[in-house]
Formats: sequence, C-alpha cells, structure tokens
Amino acid sequence: MVELGSGSLLVVSVIAAVALAALVVAVVLRRQVLAADEGTASMRAIAAAVQEGASAYLSRQLRTLVLFAVVVFALLFLLPGDAGVKIGRSVFFLVGAGFSASIGYLGMWLATRANVRVAAAANLPGGRAEGARIALRTGGVVGMSVVGLGLLGAAGVVLLYRGDAPAVLEGFGFGAALLAMFMRVGGGIFTKAADVGADLVGKVEQGIPEDDPRNAATIADNVGDNVGDCAGMAADLFESYAVTLVAALILGRAAFGEQGLVFPLVVTAIGAVVAALGVLVTRVRGSESGLTAINRGFAIAAVAGAVLSAVAAFVYLPSSFTDLAGTAGLGADDGDPRLVAAGAVAIGVVLAGLILWVTGYFTGTTSKPTIHVARTSQTGAATVVLSGIGVGFESAVYTAGIIAAAICGVFLLAGGSIALALFLVALAGCGLLTTVGVIVAMDTFGPVSDNAQGIAEMSGDATEDAAQILTDLDAVGNTTKAVTKGIAIATAVLAATALFGSYADAVAGAVSRLTLSEVPGDIVLAMTDYQVISPVTLVGVILGGATVFLFSGLAVDAVTRAAGAIVFEVRRQFREHPGIMSGTERPEYGKVVDICTRDSLRELATPGLLAASAPVAVGFGLGIGPLAGFLAGAIGTGVLMAVFLANSGGTWDNAKKLVEDGRYGGKGSPAHAAVVIGDTVGDPFKDTAGPAINPLIKVMNLVALLIAPAVVAVSIGDDANPVLRIGIALLAAAVAFGAVIASRLRAARVDAEERLEREVGLPA
Amino acid sequence: MVELGSGSLLVVSVIAAVALAALVVAVVLRRQVLAADEGTASMRAIAAAVQEGASAYLSRQLRTLVLFAVVVFALLFLLPGDAGVKIGRSVFFLVGAGFSASIGYLGMWLATRANVRVAAAANLPGGRAEGARIALRTGGVVGMSVVGLGLLGAAGVVLLYRGDAPAVLEGFGFGAALLAMFMRVGGGIFTKAADVGADLVGKVEQGIPEDDPRNAATIADNVGDNVGDCAGMAADLFESYAVTLVAALILGRAAFGEQGLVFPLVVTAIGAVVAALGVLVTRVRGSESGLTAINRGFAIAAVAGAVLSAVAAFVYLPSSFTDLAGTAGLGADDGDPRLVAAGAVAIGVVLAGLILWVTGYFTGTTSKPTIHVARTSQTGAATVVLSGIGVGFESAVYTAGIIAAAICGVFLLAGGSIALALFLVALAGCGLLTTVGVIVAMDTFGPVSDNAQGIAEMSGDATEDAAQILTDLDAVGNTTKAVTKGIAIATAVLAATALFGSYADAVAGAVSRLTLSEVPGDIVLAMTDYQVISPVTLVGVILGGATVFLFSGLAVDAVTRAAGAIVFEVRRQFREHPGIMSGTERPEYGKVVDICTRDSLRELATPGLLAASAPVAVGFGLGIGPLAGFLAGAIGTGVLMAVFLANSGGTWDNAKKLVEDGRYGGKGSPAHAAVVIGDTVGDPFKDTAGPAINPLIKVMNLVALLIAPAVVAVSIGDDANPVLRIGIALLAAAVAFGAVIASRLRAARVDAEERLEREVGLPA
Repeated sequence: MVELGSGSLLVVSVIAAVALAALVVAVVLRRQVLAADEGTASMRAIAAAVQEGASAYLSRQLRTLVLFAVVVFALLFLLPGDAGVKIGRSVFFLVGAGFSASIGYLGMWLATRANVRVAAAANLPGGRAEGARIALRTGGVVGMSVVGLGLLGAAGVVLLYRGDAPAVLEGFGFGAALLAMFMRVGGGIFTKAADVGADLVGKVEQGIPEDDPRNAATIADNVGDNVGDCAGMAADLFESYAVTLVAALILGRAAFGEQGLVFPLVVTAIGAVVAALGVLVTRVRGSESGLTAINRGFAIAAVAGAVLSAVAAFVYLPSSFTDLAGTAGLGADDGDPRLVAAGAVAIGVVLAGLILWVTGYFTGTTSKPTIHVARTSQTGAATVVLSGIGVGFESAVYTAGIIAAAICGVFLLAGGSIALALFLVALAGCGLLTTVGVIVAMDTFGPVSDNAQGIAEMSGDATEDAAQILTDLDAVGNTTKAVTKGIAIATAVLAATALFGSYADAVAGAVSRLTLSEVPGDIVLAMTDYQVISPVTLVGVILGGATVFLFSGLAVDAVTRAAGAIVFEVRRQFREHPGIMSGTERPEYGKVVDICTRDSLRELATPGLLAASAPVAVGFGLGIGPLAGFLAGAIGTGVLMAVFLANSGGTWDNAKKLVEDGRYGGKGSPAHAAVVIGDTVGDPFKDTAGPAINPLIKVMNLVALLIAPAVVAVSIGDDANPVLRIGIALLAAAVAFGAVIASRLRAARVDAEERLEREVGLPA
Repeated sequence: MVELGSGSLLVVSVIAAVALAALVVAVVLRRQVLAADEGTASMRAIAAAVQEGASAYLSRQLRTLVLFAVVVFALLFLLPGDAGVKIGRSVFFLVGAGFSASIGYLGMWLATRANVRVAAAANLPGGRAEGARIALRTGGVVGMSVVGLGLLGAAGVVLLYRGDAPAVLEGFGFGAALLAMFMRVGGGIFTKAADVGADLVGKVEQGIPEDDPRNAATIADNVGDNVGDCAGMAADLFESYAVTLVAALILGRAAFGEQGLVFPLVVTAIGAVVAALGVLVTRVRGSESGLTAINRGFAIAAVAGAVLSAVAAFVYLPSSFTDLAGTAGLGADDGDPRLVAAGAVAIGVVLAGLILWVTGYFTGTTSKPTIHVARTSQTGAATVVLSGIGVGFESAVYTAGIIAAAICGVFLLAGGSIALALFLVALAGCGLLTTVGVIVAMDTFGPVSDNAQGIAEMSGDATEDAAQILTDLDAVGNTTKAVTKGIAIATAVLAATALFGSYADAVAGAVSRLTLSEVPGDIVLAMTDYQVISPVTLVGVILGGATVFLFSGLAVDAVTRAAGAIVFEVRRQFREHPGIMSGTERPEYGKVVDICTRDSLRELATPGLLAASAPVAVGFGLGIGPLAGFLAGAIGTGVLMAVFLANSGGTWDNAKKLVEDGRYGGKGSPAHAAVVIGDTVGDPFKDTAGPAINPLIKVMNLVALLIAPAVVAVSIGDDANPVLRIGIALLAAAVAFGAVIASRLRAARVDAEERLEREVGLPA
C-alpha cells in the first residue's frame, strides 16, 4: 500500500470530522422539522396514504436493485487487477450504492412527513414564514446529508486505502451513479405517469380540478412527487458529488501527487461548511420572490466557497510543481499550483452562477422566452409546442457553450498540459459543488410545498389564506427545480470530462503492463484509433449520441405507456363505481399506486441495462479509441439533450402558469388548452428523460473506466484473445438489444390490452 | 501539373460523354412533359400565378446569393496555396454553386409546369396512368440532370486539372453544398411558413378546407411546395452527389493513385446509366401502391448498379496494391483492390436498401409505429406529440446504427489501413448514389402531384374521378419524400466521414510544408489534441453538436415567425375585404407570396452565416484537433437530429392520414384535432430543419477542409502568428453571434408588431 504523509492524514481526518459534523447538522434539522404540528386528522390521513405509497414503492425498488447490485458486484471481480484493490472496489461499490439509496430514501421519508407539516403551518397565524421555514429545513436535511455522506465516503476511502484510493473510489462512484440512475429513471417514470394519467382523466376527460379527491390517481400523483422529485433528485445530486470527487482524486494524484488526493477533499469540505451557512441564512423575506432568496443564499455560498478555497490553496499547496509528487511530469515551468488550483475552483463557482442565470432567463415567468411561448398559445397548441422546442434548443446551445467556455478556461490555466487540465476540470467541478448544498436545500422546497398544497386541497381543511400561501411556496419550487437541473448537468459534464481523462490514464497504464514480444502494430493502430479522424472513432461518436437518443426515447415512451395504464384504471373506477363522482364512494387510491409501482419498476430495466451494456459492447467490439469516441458522443449529445429537455419542459410549465394567471384569456380559454398540451408534453421531458441523462453519462464513463484494462488485455499484445473479445461484445450487445426488444414486446401487449378494452368494453 | 495516363484520360472522356448523354435524356424527357395538355383556362391561370410566385422567389433568392457567392469567391483567394490551383478552386466554386442553383431552378421551373398538366391529364380518360407518367417524367428530368451535371463537373475538373483535381474539386463541392444549404433553408422556411400560416387561418380559424381559393395564402402554399420540395430538394441531392464524388476523388488518389481518381467516376457513370434505366422502367401498375413501384424501380437500379460496379472493378483495377500508385503506402498485404472496391460499393447499395426499409417501417401508414401514433390521438394532442417524438428518437437510433454498421463493415474490408478505409467509405457513398437517380425521380413526384391536386381543387374544374386520382398520386409522393430524406442523410454521413479523412490529410500536408527551426513542442501538442481524450477536443465535440441544435432551433423559429406574419396578413384581408369570404372578391394572393419571399430570404441569413463561420471560429480559436472534434460532434448529432426530425414529421403526417381515412372518429373528431396538431409540429421538423442539416454537415466539413492549411500555418511552427489567429477566430465568432443576435432582434420586432395589432386593432 502506498503511504500518505502524516500531515495529509491529519487533514483528511479533519475532513472526515467535518463530514460527520454535516451529518449532525442534518440530524438536528430533521428533529426541528419533525417537531412541527401535523395538522388535522384529515390531513394526517392523506399524508399517511402518501407515506405508505412512497415507502412501498421505494422498498420494492430497492429490493429489485439489490439483485442488480449483487450481479454487478460479482462482475467487478472478473475484471483484471490486484486482489486487495478489487475487494475494496467491490465493497465500496456497495457502499456507494447504499449511500445513494439511503439519501434517496431519507429525502423521500422526510418529505412525506414535512408536506403535511407545511400544510398545517400555513393554516396558523404567521403561516407564510413558518411554512417556508419547515420546507427549507427539510431541504437542509437532504443537502447536509448529501454533502456529509459524499465527503465521508471519499475521505474514508482515502484514510483506508491511502495511495490505492483512486481504484477503490471508482467502485464507490460507480455504485452511487448506478443506483442514482435507476432511482432517477424509476422515480421519473412513476411521477410523470401518475401526473399525466391523473390530468388526462381528471382535468381533460372529467373536468375536475387537480388534486380532487375523487380522482383515483391523486394519491399516486403526490407519491410521485416524493419518489421522483425528492428521492430521485437527492440520489442524483449525491451521485454528482461522489463522482466529481472520485474524478478529482484520481486525476489529482497524477497531477499533484499526495496533495492532489487531499486538496479536492479540502475544497469539498469547505463546500460543506458553506452549505450549512447557506441553509441557515436562506429565508424568504416578506414579499420578495423565491428567486431573490435563492439568489442571495447562492451568492453567499458561492463567494464564501471561492474565497475559502483560494485561502486553502495558498495555505496547503506549495508554490511550485517541483515540490509536488505528481506522476504527470509537471515542472517549474507549469505555473504556480496554488494559483491554478484556486483559479479552477473559481471558474467552477462562476460557472454555477452563469448556469443559474441562463436557466432562470430561459424558464422564468418574467423573462422573454417564456412570455413568447405563452403568447404563441393564441395560435394554438402546435405553435406552443414548436416555440417551446425552439427555446429548449436555444438554451441548450448557450448552456453547452458556457460549459465549453469553462473547460477552455481551465485548459488555458493548465498551459497545455493535458494531465493538469484534466485535474483542473475536476477541481472546477468541486468548485461548482461548493454551492450544491444550498441548491439541494432549495430544490427539495419544490415537491414539499407542492405536496403540502395537494394535501390542503384534498383535505378541504385549509383556509383561503393558507391556500394562497401554499400556492406562493409552490411557485418558488418551480423555479428552483429548473435551476437544479442546470447545475446537475454542468457537474455531470465536468465530471464526465475528467473521468474521460482517467480513462486514458487507465488505458495507458494497462498498455504499459502488457507482456509484449515486440512493439506490435496493433498498439500503434490502437493509438491511431484514438484520433477523432479515424472512421471507427467517428462511429463511436455516432453510437454514443445514439445511446442518449435511445435512452431518452425509452424514458418518454415508458411514461406514455404507464400513463395509459393509469388512464384505464381510473376510467374503470369511475365506470364501475358511479358513487366516486358523486362523492359517496372513496376511490381505490392504492390500486393506482400499485400500477405506477409495477410499471415504473418494469420500465426502468431497459434503459438501465442499455446504459450498462452499451459501453461494454462498443469497447470490446470496436476497441479503446472508438470507446473514447463513444463517451465523447454521449457527453456532447447528452448535455445538449439534457438541457433541451429540462428547459423546454420548464418554459412550458411556466407559460402555463402565465396563462393561468390570466393572460390571453386565462383558465378555460383556448389559449389555456394549448399551454396545457405544451405542459403535458414537457412533463416527461423535464422530469423523466432529461434528468436521467445526467447519471447516464457518468455511469457509461465509469463502466468505460472500469473495463479499460480488460479491453486492452484481450485486444492488444501477445495475450490478445479475439474470440473472448468478440464473445463479450456480442453478449453485451445481446443484453442491450434484448432489453430494447423486451420493452417493444411490452408495448405491443399494452396496445393489445387497450384494443381489448375498446372492443369488448371491459378493462383488460 | 501532375499528368494522368492516356488510358485514364480515355476513360474519363467516356465518362464525360455519359454525363452529356444523361443530360440529353433529361432534355428529351422535358420535351415529353411540356408536350402534354395544359388544361382549362382556370387551371392555367392558377398555374401561372404559382409559376410567377415561384420564379419571383427564386430570382430574388439567387440575386441575394450572388452577393454571398462573390464574397466567398474572394475569401477563397486569401487561403494559402498554389496560385493556379487557387484560381481553379475559386472558379469551380462558382461552377458548383451555379450548377446547384440551376438544378434547383430547373426542378422548380418544370414542376410548376408539370403540375397543371398532371391536373389536366387526370380529367381525361385513362387519367391515372397518364398523370403518373407526366409526374414521373418530370422527376426523371430532375434525376438525370442531377446525375449528368454532377458527373460532368467532376469529370471536367479531372480532365482539366489531372493530378491537381482534388484541390479544385474542393471548390466545386463547396459551391454546390453552400448553395444547396441556402436553397434548402430558404425554400424550407417558405414552404412551411405558407403551409402552417394557411392552415392556422384557413382550417383552424375560418373552418374552410385546404386549397380553398378564398384563403389568401393558398397560392403561396403551392409556390412553397415548388421552391421547397422541388428546388431545395433537387439542389440538395445534387450537392450530395457532388460532395460524395469530391471526397471519393480526393481520397481515391491517396489510396489507389491515378485509378483512385478515375474509379469513383466509373461507379457514378454506371449510376447514371442505371438511373436512366430505373426512370424508364418505373411506373405505377394498375392498383398497386406507390411503395411497390418505388421498391421495384429501386431494386432494379440497386442490383444493376452493384453488379456493373463489381464488373468495372474487376476489369479496371489491378489485383494488387503494388500495381497502384497511391501515396498511402498500401502493399501486397492489404488485400485485392478489386475485391475491396467492389465490396465497398456493394455495402453502399445494401445501406441504401436498409435505409429505404427502416424509413418505410417508421413512417409508413401500414406499419406499427404510425398506427401507434394515430392510436394515441384518443388521449389527446399531448400524447400524439410525445409518441411521435418517441418514434423519431427510436428511428434515428436505428438509422444511425445501420450507417455506423456500414462504416464498420467498410473498415473491416480495409483491414486496418485508415487511408484505405476512408476511401472505401467514400466509395460506399458512390455505391449509395447509384440509386439516387431513381430516388430523385420518385421524390419529385410528390410536390408535382400535391400541386396538381391544389390546382384542380382551386379551379373547380376537376371531375370526381380526377380528384380521386390526384389524391392517390399525392399519397404516393408522401412515402417517397420520407425515403429520400433517409437516403440523403446517409450520403451526407458517408461523405462527411470521408471528408473528415481528407481534413486529416490536409493538416498533415500543411504540417509537412512548414518552416521549422526544430520539431516544436506545439506540433506534439497539436497531435495530442487530436485524441478524443483531450478536453478541448471534447469541447469541439460539444460545440459541433451545439451548432446543429442552434441551426435546427433557428430554422424552426424562422418558420413560426414567418407563419405568424402570414396569419396577420390573411386575417387583415378577411377583415378589410368581407367580400373574400362570400366569394365576391378575389384575395390578394401576391401579398402573401411577397411576405413569404421577404421573410424566408431574411431568415436564411442567420443559419447560413452560422454554418460558414462556426468552423472558422473553432479552428482558428481552439486548433486543428478541436476542429476535428467539432466535425465529429456535428456529424454524430447531425445524423441523429436529421433522422429524428424527418421521421417524427413523417409519422405524424401519416398518422393524420390514418385518422382522416376514418380511424378513431375520422375527420372532425377530437382525435383528428389531435393529429392535426401533431402534423403541424412536424411540418417545420420534416421540411425545414431536418433536411437542411444534411447540407449543413457538408458545408462545415468543406469549410474545415479549406481552412486546414491556414489554421496550421498561423498556429504551428516558426511562422505562427497568434495575433492573426485569434483575430480571425474573434471575427468569425462575431459574425456567428451577430447573425444570431440579428435574428433575435427581428423576433423582438415581430413580437412588437403583433402586440400593436392586438392593442390597436390594426395590422402592423
């Protein structure tokens, strides 16, 4: 085991203590939330139904995923490598997956308890401030847990494995990303299937308002907010945290040596402190808009994070690369490590601010693009859809451009050394993450207040004042949700870009360990393959983009399909129990929750298997260069698609709000019908397909990183084994195709059921 | 000047003769079309209005583009290179642009004369066969002209410039691609703005049928079919032809020497013969569907093309690379040139067949995906939009996968030599093009019969039988249009992949000519940049994809905006002239045509400038490696977006047809309203944004190819000039941003006009 110096060990120990302190803050905040009043009996009953549905879903999901985790755990042992490291990597794969699942579960658990408390608080005098406080504290618990567990995991691995930490961290990051991807996809399908299904039968067919207790899908809709927006989002941000740290530590060791392994942890620990500060000072004052409050909390966290990180760089790092023990061969000519490190962190912080601003501009209710989309509602739904798609494309371009500019800025800082540039990209990611605690806290605000509004509406126990307070809080949540997605995708791109560099390192390392009788032509060929100019590398780029398209298409289809099943069930209940409509019978809420649970768990398998097996098929089938192309294509297309889907959905949502606030005829007008169609199209865009691309990119990068040595071993040098190579590629391709075909067959069955209902007049 | 052998010169002369023969066939077919009866006075009057509008548009467009062509002509002289070659390149840039424009103009000119003749023929006994014959002959004229001019241009350059032909051909291809891009974008905006605008006021607001003479936008709608679907498409396919040939000749010389310069011409000449055969034998027999006829014509052309090309390879090429004078260093171990060449052509032909099949499957009225989209109309417009998007994503993935598989197949044939692989990719493109004559002919069928239907409807002179015949002919056209787009994008990817290789050659050549005092570090760095693993190369990939997104968004926005202007004008006419609605007053058709002309010419500047300046900004700003990444990102994202946009539009169009044929309630039902919204969303997707991506990819590749030596000269070696480099990059970026900002400002002005109309009640 490579040792670390005692100074470094001390610093890492302090960092672990900071992580524990963050978790303590989370526990304290959690106690505060739970201490609040739980409201009327009716409110409590509704909340209990939501809690039960959400727990049932998550438990079933986790049971399903345990199987998957065990398979991956076993597969990780098949990869080449040192036994001790392999055990550590597999164990920490489980730890990462477990942390990710726990954060998701915690977020959901607390949100389903906070919602009723926010609803109850709104009914009391001074309800606005108290409601906002509870919702914010709930977000604080999740934010501090994300930060605390992420930091604890990474610091723990460094303390346990010292210089071998990077290889073990790959497992930790992979576990976190894989679990988060499944929770994002599954939760995303659940929440939007329930939402779209409830709206189609309730609002469109029966003309009853949202959250009307007569709609059998309302409880499922509220459960969905928790399992999708809380559990899925919390797991996703934890994963961003973990993977960015993993990339930074791997690359840091190469560029800076021991200090490179420790400095990213220092920046992230500063982030934890700053997050606590941000959570504690953020509150919605008087009549100010939610965006003002979030901007203030964010600005405080950002400035404090950048300044403290710069101080840490100047205190902790030496002034010349010659005093660092990195393996990338950096010397006295490569600049001042303190300056470049502080600069990279600052670029990350500025990037976060710019993303916040651009996302707000394209999706906010007061800015031109959304007003433009709302205005096109006068010429019908088609122009609403087209203008929203236009806004989505455009915002994707600017967001991608800003991220690209940040990477170029870091590259300039690095003065041309690729190894240094890659580490600095990861450090910029760490800088961006110093603001994530506040972002998570504000994000959780959304589903909690959305749910509080639903509970108040369904219970009928809310005063008119309380209803208005809850509507206002909900509007704050809408803005923060869009911003979080922008930040999440920015961290994903930075982390993926950095991991991409680790992949090259892994390949070079594996090549250097080969048994070679002579320098074979195929090594030269493999290196040529790396060039973007090679046709097979270009094929990799095309396939990487295609995987993102397929993944998005599968997610959107899954929502459409599951929503269809819900429509049939709600219709059946209305038809067979006429008492539901007249209010004398209670709908069977549980049945709809069961359908959502069953369908979303079934549907998440296909995209999940696709993400895990596609890089394996490309890597073993086409080689290491095309696999790099594949990753580049996935990152490039992925960032554009993720932002496009998130922001077009966001602008449609807010265009609907504008019309509902009375513009162009207001509620019930043809313009309103048009924006409702736009919003429904946007639902699976922004809450299912878009957010899932973020973990997707990282899962594929980590898979590539993990298999890189195996690909090199079977394809290059004396021990090359073409039969094994092609066999693995075909197997992986078969898994990917099989999953897609299974999804097609399910679709055919759903279609057949629907025909049956239509022809026989009976539910299938 | 490098000389060619006398045998090669003889072969090229024969090829030039074949090209002239193809043009003679076109002239003969044209005479046959014009000989047909022109119909009633009323039909002739309407046709004259369409002819006039189309000519006015194209003349104004060409006048605008002449300016642009002159500027580019001048800029081409600024690039480094041998004076003689530079003059040839610039002159042939104008020739390529002129040919492209002429083909477009010819297609439009003839289509606006054939439409009325088809309408007239349908009124006569035996009208079905005669109408189909005229429409097919019209397509034949365009198809043979595309093939003839493409071949003539390329053979002419080879005869004039011999071994220097490749550099001159770059100019020829660039001219063709640039003009085609503008014609695609401008025509696409015109046709869809008129179509969407006419539908929004006519069908939606006033409830009058399509092509009703009371709608002031009907003539514009018919003009649009000709300038978009005929002129734009013909120019686009000519450009595919020219650019693929250019890539094949450039790479052929490197891989095969003299024979590599000639063999692609041989394959394409075979394509011309096969196209004439296909056009002459293709006819719709009795009651068979249009797809059966096209499949038969295609199959004949494909098999004949592949077999004759294989024969040509075995007759013309030697059995070993040692007998070829290529510069890529291929030897006896690299296989049999006859086999690999014939194999590559065959792969191209098979690729065309697969694309035909996949596109038919995803957009055809009888296949599952379209039926699925039609079925979702029962749950409203939102599910129609979502399911169509799902189909589009999925079809994009399969199409991209098939193209990727073809490239991999070619790569395997090449046995690992990248130079050979690149040439074979281009040869596969030539193989694909042997079927293009038939495809173009069938494609032109669509707008001609669509227009014939419009003229019959507006004139009121068509019998009921004739109306049915014209409806049937129109339906045939819908299928062929989708297929043509698939083929066009496949050729674009193959051509771009091959050009991509020429770019690497150009860079290597430029580096070898540098004045170097020592091997400088920046050459090593530049070569590292090429690796996909470098963060700036990844930035290039992201920016390449972003350019495609921005271009698509601009095109969709332009249509929405121009359609809005038409809506206001048609409303104004209805309001100010109540006699129009009662049929006592004639609408001012010309005003709407003028608005379409003005707006589409104004709107095409932004995407055009973006396409031309983005590669310059990336190349000079970031370097040669990132520019390669940029191209890869543009190709990868471009193929996916192009197919997604084309096929989702195609499936929506046909889902509408299914409902209009009586499913799910038929015309006037809520399901019909839902599919009409889907179709309107699809209009700018499939006819504006999607098809324009095809020339976009090639324009950007050719720009990269042209500037590569200049980028190398200013950025590497002793004569590097960072100030000039950054200056050029900033200038190009300013042009791109300026264009986008100008477009934004126009949008703001349109919004302001609209507000004015609303508030003051007056047209702006």
